[in-house]
Amino acid sequence: MKTLIVHAHPEPNSLNGSLKDLAVSTLEGAGHEVRVSDLYAMNWKAVVDAADYGPQASSPLKVASDSGRAFEAGTLTPDVLAEQEKLLWADTIIFQFPLWWYTMPAILKGWVDRVFTYRFAYGVGVHDETKYGERFGEGTLAGKRALLSVTAGGPESHYSARGINGPVDDLLFPIQHGILYYPGIDVLPPFVLYGTDRMTAEEYRDVAKAWEQRLLALESTEPVAFRRQNFGDYEIPSLQLKEGLESPGRTGFGLHVRG
Amino acid sequence: MKTLIVHAHPEPNSLNGSLKDLAVSTLEGAGHEVRVSDLYAMNWKAVVDAADYGPQASSPLKVASDSGRAFEAGTLTPDVLAEQEKLLWADTIIFQFPLWWYTMPAILKGWVDRVFTYRFAYGVGVHDETKYGERFGEGTLAGKRALLSVTAGGPESHYSARGINGPVDDLLFPIQHGILYYPGIDVLPPFVLYGTDRMTAEEYRDVAKAWEQRLLALESTEPVAFRRQNFGDYEIPSLQLKEGLESPGRTGFGLHVRG
Repeated sequence: MKTLIVHAHPEPNSLNGSLKDLAVSTLEGAGHEVRVSDLYAMNWKAVVDAADYGPQASSPLKVASDSGRAFEAGTLTPDVLAEQEKLLWADTIIFQFPLWWYTMPAILKGWVDRVFTYRFAYGVGVHDETKYGERFGEGTLAGKRALLSVTAGGPESHYSARGINGPVDDLLFPIQHGILYYPGIDVLPPFVLYGTDRMTAEEYRDVAKAWEQRLLALESTEPVAFRRQNFGDYEIPSLQLKEGLESPGRTGFGLHVRG
Repeated sequence: MKTLIVHAHPEPNSLNGSLKDLAVSTLEGAGHEVRVSDLYAMNWKAVVDAADYGPQASSPLKVASDSGRAFEAGTLTPDVLAEQEKLLWADTIIFQFPLWWYTMPAILKGWVDRVFTYRFAYGVGVHDETKYGERFGEGTLAGKRALLSVTAGGPESHYSARGINGPVDDLLFPIQHGILYYPGIDVLPPFVLYGTDRMTAEEYRDVAKAWEQRLLALESTEPVAFRRQNFGDYEIPSLQLKEGLESPGRTGFGLHVRG
């Protein structure tokens, strides 16, 4: 495998830092190639602005179209170009981050906002009567696989089907489906650790073992069965799931997973 | 009313910028006090790091506990202290932002990550057999009301009950419930505009009218009926919704709204 690890935690000596280091050593030890984007160490610029698009920035700034013209002209900033190159190089992408306020830290959202430009991650493919662009199962990054490795301070019951935070699969849906599956990446079931504010050294040993096992099984892990957009499940252009396709009782985000 | 508008768009001459300006003029015209946190104009620092906690930053950095000690010691940075003061001043908070990759732009997430510190927005109140902290309906910001004003490039059908993006209320749940209701803020139904990449001047006139009406009705608008955490609906400490409370067929995020 060629694995890119995108890491978003300010403290190297943290659970997230340890999990990232363990991923590097485990994958390299198994003969895989690994590259790391350690966003804090890189002092990653988190905020989209006109400077991102150089001479292609229009006035007034239009984030989508300006980013697409800069992408096509090759004038995106070197930091963004480097991340796009890493994404094209990788066949597997691991995101390591803590859940802060039920989603990714700002620095990682800023990586998405700046790297996933128009014409690269969206605004790809034709729109006609049978296709609504290349999205959700098709796109620039089709064929690649991603895995979220996430730490949560609260206990697992708070993230269960009836838990007050909402089910963890629903909390992660806007990332797994909306950000990753959108440009074509298949998404493996997430590796989620709970109660991480109070983890003991002994608990960490078990966690490390479980993480190694997930890492060494990456190539044989089945992705989440998100529905592809352009292959008959959705009305075009309304992109509503056709009636009767879902399992009984499924609603909301769950409609977009087969079976 | 005392209204704080938190605004997150890089281009003043944009739909988001126009909606923000219209909110200021409409509310001031109706005799209300308005303050604006224009995050791009303020060059808001989006990324949590040790510099946020000054002498209270431990090594290794512990984001939750360090932020709480800095809050209690009064040594948070002036930019964060100013935002906390505005939140305490306001009775109503409007968030104006575009949906980028199905959630808020990084600069606004970074406002949440840095301003919503431990002991201010979480880690508040006692944990015992009948209370699990002051959260979800109680907390530092209880009694205040918030409204998301959001623009989405895609058409409304994509965000409908069967739409491929998922229902907009579910996409906004981690923000409305997880970020705003958590420290006690009541959340009004969102003002969402769709298809904004292709809005005509005539469409904008209708949008502006609708936005003015929402703004002038803020005081009489009923909030979303999220369930309070510590008033009998949830098992403590598992925080799972007690069996039988939900309406038939409700699952996922929808469990946490009454009725």
